Parts: sequence; structure tokens; C-alpha cells
Amino acid sequence: MPVNLSAPTSSSLLPIDGIEIGIASAGIKTVGKEDLVLIKIAQGSSTSAVYTKNAFCAAPVTLAKQHQQETSPQYLLINSGNANAGTGEVGMQAAQQCCQAVAEVVATEANTVLPFSTGVIGQQLPVEKVTQAIPLAYQNLVSDNWFDAAHAIMTTDTIAKAISKQIEIDGKTVTVTGMAKGSGMIRPDMATMLSYIATDAAIEQSVLDLMLQNAVNQSFNRITVDGDTSTNDACVLMATAHAGNQIITDINDASAEKLYQLIAEISQQLAHAIVRDGEGATKFIAIDVEQGVNTEECRQVAYTIAHSPLVKTALFASDPNWGRILAAVGRSGLSDFNLSKVAIYLDSVCIVNNGEPALTYTEEQGQQVMNQDEITIRVELGRGDAKDTVWTCDFSYDYVKINAEYRT
Amino acid sequence: MPVNLSAPTSSSLLPIDGIEIGIASAGIKTVGKEDLVLIKIAQGSSTSAVYTKNAFCAAPVTLAKQHQQETSPQYLLINSGNANAGTGEVGMQAAQQCCQAVAEVVATEANTVLPFSTGVIGQQLPVEKVTQAIPLAYQNLVSDNWFDAAHAIMTTDTIAKAISKQIEIDGKTVTVTGMAKGSGMIRPDMATMLSYIATDAAIEQSVLDLMLQNAVNQSFNRITVDGDTSTNDACVLMATAHAGNQIITDINDASAEKLYQLIAEISQQLAHAIVRDGEGATKFIAIDVEQGVNTEECRQVAYTIAHSPLVKTALFASDPNWGRILAAVGRSGLSDFNLSKVAIYLDSVCIVNNGEPALTYTEEQGQQVMNQDEITIRVELGRGDAKDTVWTCDFSYDYVKINAEYRT
Repeated sequence: MPVNLSAPTSSSLLPIDGIEIGIASAGIKTVGKEDLVLIKIAQGSSTSAVYTKNAFCAAPVTLAKQHQQETSPQYLLINSGNANAGTGEVGMQAAQQCCQAVAEVVATEANTVLPFSTGVIGQQLPVEKVTQAIPLAYQNLVSDNWFDAAHAIMTTDTIAKAISKQIEIDGKTVTVTGMAKGSGMIRPDMATMLSYIATDAAIEQSVLDLMLQNAVNQSFNRITVDGDTSTNDACVLMATAHAGNQIITDINDASAEKLYQLIAEISQQLAHAIVRDGEGATKFIAIDVEQGVNTEECRQVAYTIAHSPLVKTALFASDPNWGRILAAVGRSGLSDFNLSKVAIYLDSVCIVNNGEPALTYTEEQGQQVMNQDEITIRVELGRGDAKDTVWTCDFSYDYVKINAEYRT
Repeated sequence: MPVNLSAPTSSSLLPIDGIEIGIASAGIKTVGKEDLVLIKIAQGSSTSAVYTKNAFCAAPVTLAKQHQQETSPQYLLINSGNANAGTGEVGMQAAQQCCQAVAEVVATEANTVLPFSTGVIGQQLPVEKVTQAIPLAYQNLVSDNWFDAAHAIMTTDTIAKAISKQIEIDGKTVTVTGMAKGSGMIRPDMATMLSYIATDAAIEQSVLDLMLQNAVNQSFNRITVDGDTSTNDACVLMATAHAGNQIITDINDASAEKLYQLIAEISQQLAHAIVRDGEGATKFIAIDVEQGVNTEECRQVAYTIAHSPLVKTALFASDPNWGRILAAVGRSGLSDFNLSKVAIYLDSVCIVNNGEPALTYTEEQGQQVMNQDEITIRVELGRGDAKDTVWTCDFSYDYVKINAEYRT
């Protein structure tokens, strides 16, 4: 059961002028289940993408990066059910064959196609199943297809993740629609996180790249379920320039700022949705670390807390076991760390003050916060003005169950 | 159930001439249960100690470090049941009062006493219970008391951990006896790892310091159950010089080498015992990383694997899910990492070769290794001559159970 997360409705997902989506059943997942998505990006669009930093990245990630360096993407091809990761040279050829198949159907060059795969690691991609289904996906390309696409890219997700929002820029309505899949960040055997966000706004490539980088850093790069980084992670941002706004060429413009906020908001909601649907999650946890020298050290402390199995099991048990949070802060490795300035809060309840247990704290107060299914752990480091936030979930029996019994 | 670990017998633990141990029930744990240990170190001994690097270290750790800088230790005072951690200024005063109480009973200075506490975090130490029991512990100081001491320092350990070994140096029999406690490395709310090792050999202080540092680096600093570092960890090495060997003044001497090997062996066996008795452990795992540029990067890769909840749950499930190991290696953060040289083995079964799934690998081979309760994961990085090893256990339902339900 995802934590406070409901599925999108079909009507809530707005089409993006210039983006068409075709869907097919290639038979990689279960026969008859939709598992192939073809996204057509209109000529004149800008496309930006960020990929996993895992050195063992999957074949499609390597190929997508290469294609993007060579030319501007016209098509995205996404399959679920098989990650084409850990598949060696054969896997690379498979990814190339898929792109080539799209190129032949739509009469373009193979390097204008970016391939994405998500699903089981270490099994060769059934290339023929994919190539046979591509014409089908091509035939049903329509703009109003985000709802089905959000479902088709799911693997172990228990719920689809997609959202649309609109604003006005230059008197024109600008729409942003995004979808993501991922359940447990990150599950290498079901190589996990994919997200596709599109807008009809006109944005210069360099500004689009910056927007995506910043938005990802405030969303997908700030969530963790188990600290493992997938071999297949990717996030793509497309801008079709069909909305009629004046092209955004400066990230510091008022319109750029407005649009960026929207994209960042959607990215963050999608990222949160992944945590809320995290493997075995029963709680959604924000970890705010403030008063650091820089954001890096705030993040370092936040991730140390977020990855501590002891903190995560205490959260699962609704146990206000502040000693575990304190110990995680203590081992987070900051240099010249003056503990006597540290404060720690559960929501608004102060549990540690000046580096010592807060005199005002009572177990009842802590218990009250811990009983909630959404909790903020806030740490004040007392050594600067920087801050950062990481989102995570708790660590339950079901996490072990899902990950221990997954292949059996 | 600890993994392939049996309790020491009383007769297997040899006394160390120059070390006397007194035990008492202070009533911190359960009334009547032994929870206080006083160790008397003969005049003329050398004592070395290493402590937790957790910035939030417990009051006794801070005080022990301070006392050690001031003078040579004559007594160690260890209580279980309460860690005196996260207890602020009151906790520091409590630790001082305990040392003062020993000093009064034995007529010495308080700073010749090193205090150690292990047990629940965040509760004030019941000082009076400790100080009242100190005369009792003092009265029963005897050299042949390691067996009872190993039990008295236990908290959540399911089994006592102690060992003795002997060698000949300069025609004299030299004995080393060590004990440790810890179950789950590390459990901040039952602040965990303590170890005391003594020898009757004569060793110069500087050499003793080096020996302890090296031995700890090859043992206690190479184990992990859940990646959390306790606020109370300490390891003490005492050398009484009663064996009659010529004093060891050079770590490169043949006798030094011989003795160091023995101390290292005991440290390693005690460290392994902690992992074997790790919370919820069903398997004992060695992670060998070889062919690195330096030992640091080997350790970095080894710990990334050892801390991956996905690898650990797969080990629990006896699932030869090599994709999870490969993904952990890939995200371990080595710079200029050439994957095409990486090989990964489960025991002697090659699962990845030249960065790709090994053609010779079969699921049956992997399953056979995974069914064992002792497994070596070996990674060859193919970029140097350095290597390092880390030991860990798997991640089971019981880990979540123990840590989620511990306080309820």
C-alpha cells in the first residue's frame, strides 16, 4: 500500500502539443500486457536527459547517451519487463537493433531514437518481440496517451505515477505533463527509475538542460529507499515549443523561473510518489538538514540518517528512538563537528538541543509524531546557512520479503 | 542462532599473569545478573586503546580518552546495561563519579581508571548502583575470571565471545586472552562493541599502540552488520610484561611479528564472532576485493556490497542474484573505473568476467554456493595489486524484528 498516494485519473493527464505516444504489447512482461511505449517528439523540440551514475549502466543507457551526443532525439522507445542490463555486448546489439527497427518504421536514422529499458537484470532482451511490436506502437501514436503510458512502463510499481500542471507564460497556456516509474529506489534486478516529462513551452536547449539538472537535483536525486542506485535510471525532459510563448533563453528570466518551478514541482511529486510506493514502505519521511557549511554536508548527514537500517526500522516500529538518529548524525563524517550546537527535531518536537537530550522532551511527544505516517526529521547543525532535504521511507518486514522472495 | 559459533569453555580461557578481574552485580541489567567488571592491570604494564569515531561518543569514551592522555591506566571499569550515551553533562559527571569511586576503594587517582559502558542509550547511568558494587568487584579480583567477565559484559549478545592462544617467545610461553561483546555492528541504542585483550608479553608502548591499531584495522574495523557505528565502541590491549620475554621494542622484530600475528588472529576471531552473532544473521559473508589501486578503494567497494540491503536480502534468501552485486560494484564510486576488467566470484564460481556475465556461469552453480551458510564474494577490479576484506552477515526478517520491536 503506497503511503498517501492515489493513482492519476485519465482525464487529469493533459496531452502536450508536439508529443505523441504509442503503446503496444510486446509480450516481454505477461502476454497481452502493455510493455512497449514509443514517444514521438515533434521537429523543433528540445530534449534533455540525465542518466544513472552507476558505472555498470545498462546497454540502452550507454546507447541513449551516445545517440544524444550525435543528434537531436525524435523518438523515445521504452520497454518494461527487461532492463537489458548486465547483458554485455549482446545486450548492446539488442539496443541498437531496437533503435534500427524504429528508424525503419518511421523512416529516420537510428541515432534519433533514444532507447530505455526497465525490468529484470541479466536476461537478454527478446529483440524480436520488441521489433515486431514497434509498428503497432507507431500506428497508435496519439497525444492523449499519458495515462496508458504511465501504466505500461510500470514494473513492480503498485500504482501509476503521473501528473499534469498548467501556467500562463506570455499570455499563453503552457502545460507540463510527467510520468515516472520506480518502486524502491533502487532495485538493480528490476532496474528501476524512469521518468519522462514534457512541456509545450519553447525553451532553448541550454536552459532546458539546466532546468532538468536542477529539477532532478531537487527531486529524483534526493530520494532513497535503500541506497542502491539502479543501472537504468533515466529522466527525460522534452519541450516542444508549440505553446506559442517567446522562447526562453535565460534561466534567470521571470518566465523561466515560473516554468522551472512547475517542472521542479512535478519532478518532486513524481519522486515523492516513488518513495511513497517504495518497497514495503509504511511511512513517508522528509529529512531536513539545516545550518550546514554547504549543501553537500547537509546531504551527507541527511543520507546517513536516511540509509541507517536502525533509523528505518525504528520508523517502521513507530518507536521514538532518538538515540539512533543522534548516532547516525554522529557518524556522518563531518569534519570539525561541534556537537554542542546540534539540535534534532521530530516534526516540531525538539529531541536534542545543544548536542544533549532536550530537557523539554517527553516520550509521549515523540510517540505522537512517530505514530504519524508522514514525519519530518529536522537536524540543525549550527555551523552555517546551507540546507538540504532528502526523502525516504521506513524499512519493514515487507522490504525484506519483497527483496528476499522476489525471484523465488 | 549465531552462525557456526560456539561458546568458549571456562577452561579454554587462560589467565594472564598481571591481569586480575573482579565481577559484581550492580543491578543495572536485571537484579542479580552480573553487569560490572573491574580489571586490574599490574604496575609496569602497557595499555593501548582505540575508540569509536562517532562524533556523538558516549561520556565514558570521552573520559577514558582524557584519562589515558593524563596517565597510565591501572584499572578498567566496565558496566553493561546502560551505555551512558546521549546523557549530556550529567552523564559525564556520572562517569567521573564511577572512576572516583574506584579510586577511593583502591586508593589511587581517578584518572588511572578507564570507564566503559554498554547498554541502553539516553538513560542516565544509575551511579549509586555502580559505586555500591565497586567494592564487591574489587574484593573478588582474581586472574582466572575471563569466562565470567565475557558473560558479564554481554547485552543483546546471544553467546559469549572469548578466546586464548599461546606461543613461545625467547623460550618463554606468552599467552594472549581476549573477550568481546557486540551483536549487530552497531546498535546505537545498545551501544555495542567492546573488546579487551591482554597478554603477559613485554611490549613497549609505541609498539603496542601499533599492534592494536593494525589488529583492529584487520578485524573490528572490517566488520559490518548494518553500517551503523556505535557511540561506545572501544578496544583495549594490555601487556603486563610478566612472561619474561625480552621487551619488544621494534614492530619489525621476529618476536613482534609472531606476537602480532597472534593478537591479530584473536582480534579477527572475536570480530568474526560479533558478525556470526549479528542481529538476525543466518550467514557469514567474507567480501574480498582484489586488484585495486589501493586498499582504500578495495574497502570502498567491499563496504558498498556489504551495506547493500539488496545484496544482504538476496544472501538471506540464498538467491544467486548476481545483478545486485554487480550493481553495487558499479555504484561504489571508483574514479576512472574500467568495467571491462572486472570479475566477480561467488566462492570459486565466476559470475562476471571482463565486466560481462560469465559464459560459463549457470544458475545451479550459483545456487549451490548460495545455499551455504559461509560464502565468499570476491571482486577483481583489474586495476592494481591492492586488496582488502570485509566481513558481514545477511539481512533477515529477524533483523527487522529485533530492531523494530526492541523497545516495545
